[in-house]
Amino acid sequence: MEYLYHKLREYENRNIYPFHMPGHKRMPIAGMNCYGIDMTEIPEFDNLHHAQGILADAMRRAARLYRSGKTYYLVNGSTCGILAAISAVSKGGSIIVARNCHKSVYHGVLLNRLKAHYVYPAYQEEYHVNGGIDPQDVRKLLEEEKDVCAVLVTSPTYDGITSDVCKIGQIAHGYGVPLIVDEAHGALFPLDRDGCESALDAGADLVIHSLHKTLPCLTQTALIHLNGDLVSEKRLEHFLQIYQTSSPSYVLMAAMDECIRYMSTEGETYCERLHELRKRIGAGLEGTRMFRLMDDRIVGRDHITGLDDGKVVISCGQSGWSGAGLADALRNRYHLQMEMAGVDYVVGILTGMDTQEGVDRLIRAVRELDTATMGASAAMGISAAIRTSAAMRMSGAEAVSCQSLPVNRQAMTIHEADCSGKRTIPIEQAEGCVSGEFVYAYPPGIPFVVPGEVIGSDVLRIIREGQQTGLSIEGLTDVQGKTIQICNGK
Amino acid sequence: MEYLYHKLREYENRNIYPFHMPGHKRMPIAGMNCYGIDMTEIPEFDNLHHAQGILADAMRRAARLYRSGKTYYLVNGSTCGILAAISAVSKGGSIIVARNCHKSVYHGVLLNRLKAHYVYPAYQEEYHVNGGIDPQDVRKLLEEEKDVCAVLVTSPTYDGITSDVCKIGQIAHGYGVPLIVDEAHGALFPLDRDGCESALDAGADLVIHSLHKTLPCLTQTALIHLNGDLVSEKRLEHFLQIYQTSSPSYVLMAAMDECIRYMSTEGETYCERLHELRKRIGAGLEGTRMFRLMDDRIVGRDHITGLDDGKVVISCGQSGWSGAGLADALRNRYHLQMEMAGVDYVVGILTGMDTQEGVDRLIRAVRELDTATMGASAAMGISAAIRTSAAMRMSGAEAVSCQSLPVNRQAMTIHEADCSGKRTIPIEQAEGCVSGEFVYAYPPGIPFVVPGEVIGSDVLRIIREGQQTGLSIEGLTDVQGKTIQICNGK
Repeated sequence: MEYLYHKLREYENRNIYPFHMPGHKRMPIAGMNCYGIDMTEIPEFDNLHHAQGILADAMRRAARLYRSGKTYYLVNGSTCGILAAISAVSKGGSIIVARNCHKSVYHGVLLNRLKAHYVYPAYQEEYHVNGGIDPQDVRKLLEEEKDVCAVLVTSPTYDGITSDVCKIGQIAHGYGVPLIVDEAHGALFPLDRDGCESALDAGADLVIHSLHKTLPCLTQTALIHLNGDLVSEKRLEHFLQIYQTSSPSYVLMAAMDECIRYMSTEGETYCERLHELRKRIGAGLEGTRMFRLMDDRIVGRDHITGLDDGKVVISCGQSGWSGAGLADALRNRYHLQMEMAGVDYVVGILTGMDTQEGVDRLIRAVRELDTATMGASAAMGISAAIRTSAAMRMSGAEAVSCQSLPVNRQAMTIHEADCSGKRTIPIEQAEGCVSGEFVYAYPPGIPFVVPGEVIGSDVLRIIREGQQTGLSIEGLTDVQGKTIQICNGK
Repeated sequence: MEYLYHKLREYENRNIYPFHMPGHKRMPIAGMNCYGIDMTEIPEFDNLHHAQGILADAMRRAARLYRSGKTYYLVNGSTCGILAAISAVSKGGSIIVARNCHKSVYHGVLLNRLKAHYVYPAYQEEYHVNGGIDPQDVRKLLEEEKDVCAVLVTSPTYDGITSDVCKIGQIAHGYGVPLIVDEAHGALFPLDRDGCESALDAGADLVIHSLHKTLPCLTQTALIHLNGDLVSEKRLEHFLQIYQTSSPSYVLMAAMDECIRYMSTEGETYCERLHELRKRIGAGLEGTRMFRLMDDRIVGRDHITGLDDGKVVISCGQSGWSGAGLADALRNRYHLQMEMAGVDYVVGILTGMDTQEGVDRLIRAVRELDTATMGASAAMGISAAIRTSAAMRMSGAEAVSCQSLPVNRQAMTIHEADCSGKRTIPIEQAEGCVSGEFVYAYPPGIPFVVPGEVIGSDVLRIIREGQQTGLSIEGLTDVQGKTIQICNGK
């Protein structure tokens, strides 16, 4: 068994002079020691887009670990896997997608000029997050619409919530339609017997896994797995070539191979460590009054089938804190950087590489803030220390509305809107206009409105409230986020 | 001035605990020490797709060095820059492209459902390589076709040959049409006062530079520059978001910033070293009889306006050697790995990071092989040592035909062919059929035939001869390269 990283290191020592790319000729110009293994498609090192040697072997190892029919490395992130998946199944017509998908899904719909039929996730009232997808909603759309090329859902969500992918797959397959699952955040699931069920085991046809999100791998690395015979292998490979560079990074590919090797040998320990750390957080935050850790008591409600231990969702509840305020306090006062701040919660990513020290720091921080906020709350105020830590406050009622996904009327497809003439107007004048652009908070990158949708009052409220609470609202035309592009003629 | 790499290193030492991606939590699982600086879009580290901080500054530094209106980092190689460039200018209709473009150009044509009007490069008889593009061919097509959204040419070619981009740009602009230049191999041009003229200085609207090909940067990194007002900045940014991962690698971005920093301070020395080494090769290979170094005596002929010192093209001439054979001999006997083997020549990439020792090894190797081949040739044979070094031989006449680009009749657009039903047949039965796929040698990745084109006898001969001489012919349906997909109904 020959691992890419070791072969690259071994090659580095063989004194073969490089009259080829990359131009650095393996001489580091910065302290990063990855220049030495940054290679190109010379003999012995295969070609990702036509793999027959060491990369083919590496991808087969990944397929074996993941129990998938065929697995491909992605060097342009899950993004390119999603674009390739949609393009591979598209025959024109339409696609059923969960409305809480990542923007790359909408981009795939645009590039393939598809009409999107949306299924909306349930709303989880207690934590103000999106719940699961009701499989019956998928069935209803498949019954009504006749030219559907695929069903695409995101499971788990950024918040760690899974849907009944198995049931959704059975329904889709009953109509002869393939199921694509954006399982970017669930790359550990198939390797973790105590974790959530993976879409791969649940029968999905195409599954996309981000390796860097929850596994020890470099950012921008991902896998796409192909199962069954509803999707053409040839079409998938065709589009993987299109959406990925013809000069893939051997540093990224070596990191993927190392990640697969590591998970093959250390995976069990990795999962045990994750679950232990998660239990420790659960026990440590037991009894907080203001901030509340989301736990698996929500499973079984709101079409939620599972909750990922790798996501630490801490809700601000009735504390008066915003998610951005809590994230700032954790960062500035406790040196803890969270993954994401929602309107009234924060999300931390927990993996098998985390340490007890880090977890204990988080527990202590949240407990301290909880006690301080309780005291302040009891005194009908909030302590100066907390106030200066950039905490922003908003009413619970506003927070609720802000988290639900608006149901927008579609005046035209995303592609039609993309082609139409546009003009820029102040956001507050946009109600009733057809949006010419995507608007979303990043992370997680789920759009509130997509091109071709009519901008309703709820969209405007979400944008306004998101900006007020310090979320990063993207897609608006100017840097200040005060204008929006709309389609002409409406 | 804050450089990304140093800020990442400094952050690493600040003991801020990461409850965020990437999942490795900055712990190396392999010897590569880039895990520590592999970051995500947390505060302070900006967001490539909405850059306002350190990444915006870094890209402004790149724009300043390149004297461009606006410059964007690309983490998915020049490939995504080309797709985004074509998509940004596309309004449906057609595009004028040089037939010797990289496959990503054809992919851009496919995704945007454009019709391609081809201009063919001149043929350089002496070295059997593609020459330059005749600007008058571009003018003729612009005169004839009315719905052209852009002109796209590749300059320099993989072999280092430049076209009169300035003139082509003037002509295109005369028709109000933007010029896109794939200058992937010419990232050094704008930084090298003794080098070829850059498309950036010649007035092109969009220019794509691969950083890793000729500059000291990690593989998969590139830049796209925007000039003038014929192309919408907003459209370009829209498509850069689509074709690039939403989780760009900070390792790649730090490498880009370091490369720009290095070239800003050391660029002059880098260029001097390159030109000196090149002169040394020229002098060292003076007087060889069998193998011949391509030099700037070809400039001014075949619409060639310049020859890049960064490309060392060694022609096998009348030696009887194939390019693959020469590359194998250089590798196996002299430990010199070349960038590419053509049918009857090899290409080496020379940069400012090369050493006199490496260059001298190349000179000695080529001279030795030259002398041995002359001796063998004189004795009407070839030495056993050379014969066993996997040298493959073919007649000079075959080699000529193999290098010219076939002019294929277009039965349908690439997109129409992509959507049509297909079947797989043996290659030898394919003459007169409409191809359902791209077929090309990689490197350089220029297709001999694209989907929708009628497969002529010259295409079949090129494929056969390429396979016989050991080139990597890609795109054929089976691994052995014996079958091809064709469109039904033709």
